[in-house]
Amino acid sequence: MTDDIKFNRAVIVGVGLIGASLALAMRERGLAAEIVGVDRDPDVIARAQKLGIIDGGETDLKKGVKGADLVVVSTPVGAVASVAAALADAVDDGALVIDVGSVKGAVAEAAKTLPERVLFVPCHPVAGTERSGPEAGFATLFQDRWCILTPLPREDAAYKQAVDKAAALWTAVGARAEIMDAAHHDLALAVTSHLPHLIAFTLVGAADDVESVAQGEVVKYSAGGFRDFTRIAASDPIMWRDVFLTNKEAVLEVLGRFSEELAVMQRAIRWGDGKTLEDAFSRVRGLRRAIVEAGQESAAPNFGRDEKGE
Amino acid sequence: MTDDIKFNRAVIVGVGLIGASLALAMRERGLAAEIVGVDRDPDVIARAQKLGIIDGGETDLKKGVKGADLVVVSTPVGAVASVAAALADAVDDGALVIDVGSVKGAVAEAAKTLPERVLFVPCHPVAGTERSGPEAGFATLFQDRWCILTPLPREDAAYKQAVDKAAALWTAVGARAEIMDAAHHDLALAVTSHLPHLIAFTLVGAADDVESVAQGEVVKYSAGGFRDFTRIAASDPIMWRDVFLTNKEAVLEVLGRFSEELAVMQRAIRWGDGKTLEDAFSRVRGLRRAIVEAGQESAAPNFGRDEKGE
Repeated sequence: MTDDIKFNRAVIVGVGLIGASLALAMRERGLAAEIVGVDRDPDVIARAQKLGIIDGGETDLKKGVKGADLVVVSTPVGAVASVAAALADAVDDGALVIDVGSVKGAVAEAAKTLPERVLFVPCHPVAGTERSGPEAGFATLFQDRWCILTPLPREDAAYKQAVDKAAALWTAVGARAEIMDAAHHDLALAVTSHLPHLIAFTLVGAADDVESVAQGEVVKYSAGGFRDFTRIAASDPIMWRDVFLTNKEAVLEVLGRFSEELAVMQRAIRWGDGKTLEDAFSRVRGLRRAIVEAGQESAAPNFGRDEKGE
Repeated sequence: MTDDIKFNRAVIVGVGLIGASLALAMRERGLAAEIVGVDRDPDVIARAQKLGIIDGGETDLKKGVKGADLVVVSTPVGAVASVAAALADAVDDGALVIDVGSVKGAVAEAAKTLPERVLFVPCHPVAGTERSGPEAGFATLFQDRWCILTPLPREDAAYKQAVDKAAALWTAVGARAEIMDAAHHDLALAVTSHLPHLIAFTLVGAADDVESVAQGEVVKYSAGGFRDFTRIAASDPIMWRDVFLTNKEAVLEVLGRFSEELAVMQRAIRWGDGKTLEDAFSRVRGLRRAIVEAGQESAAPNFGRDEKGE
């Protein structure tokens, strides 16, 4: 099936971690005759071209997408709406347009104004690292990860074909495609991605504020657990600002639940209620095992990062 | 200097992750003529002996420590006081007694009742994995990690010698020894270890509670960030219960600061205040870089866990 997927001119709008990784994965598998990068920053284009990620580049969006049969909008999610609007009269008929944003409700809302001839399929590959920029890209990023598609409410055959094509593209680069309602996506991802990032950013920031503990000490004793949080707290600030601004409802909902649980823990500590603590800590061990078994996590202790050459 | 460190009969009380790792590290470096395990659970002793971690074992503490010149109390921190009390009249004169607990104030308090002839030096190696039991032990666990010693307020030469010996032991197994006040230790570790664990346990527990998001979805989309939290949330529940029960003040203090920060983030999300979010997210990136540079963390994206054989 994936043999069918082949594009003539693929245009990556925003050549960052995700855009560059998709370009590299497509290139490795020969999924496009030509891959072009569009970025507002000419330096990003120059670097991406030098790294062999793109064949050429363009800072002007409308010029860049001319002749494209695939447009990948891989900007921070806050910019997807304005890019999509700009594409409305610039993109060729029949071109597949996808995004890769972490929030889908806001994207669906913005897509309402697109003319029917634009075949826009909202996508979210649930994959990434804490790095940003074209240098961060690598071809295996999507391998064995899930990519969620939240198609617009359209029943026409051309659009259905576009959805199939988008799913086939993600499958071709190693991901597992899944169709989902945008609202449900936003709640599920608020749980598995947005809240964890918010908590990590907050915890790392708060550690910096305890005056009597020097930053040098935080660094030295970070192997006690803190360092795990610093990975996702090193993620791109603009990207994450946009996620929280565009997925407000769902994030506030799951944050409320987290805060309630935390209050229960706080009370148990204050009152010396060991049973509540032990019960709560015991019940969460199974979830990690399930994640490892599902191939979404390394089974090695400490993520395998401390393995010394022995 | 570490050439001097050699024990005749080292006794490990509680053969779990830390006790087993120290035994293996000492064995690898020939730091003890004989290593004996003491554990209430005869099955743990049998397993540890089979794995070559200990030469022999004993379920009775007082019998086990007879003739020992080193006793390592590596039980959950809540049990350290009662073990130390039991050791008071059982341990040989001149034996070095150390613990490895994550909380030091409570240990120092309990140590006040020990007779002067017991040379007890509270220690905390800031190292570990999410695994438990003797099978989890490995000889390089302490390599390049810090071990904090919080000596009791004693000025006698025998005790000072014991502190030096304890520091030399940790240095000999690859760690960097540091002397610190117990109260300061408890606050610094509340920041770098205890609060991160509490937050991880709570977040993973809360994810389980959002009824409309199935556990299968949490598993599938965990690569969005959630899986990072599950590692330390898989840690030993009893050990962590004891940490929170014995380091209540410091944990509640840093938890209060975290909650304040989180309220600021929550408000920024509710009001769409992108600048506050972006500023907060931007300032924490440097801390990870410092941790990597200090050799306390892997520089590889995603902790290196996703590296495919290429």
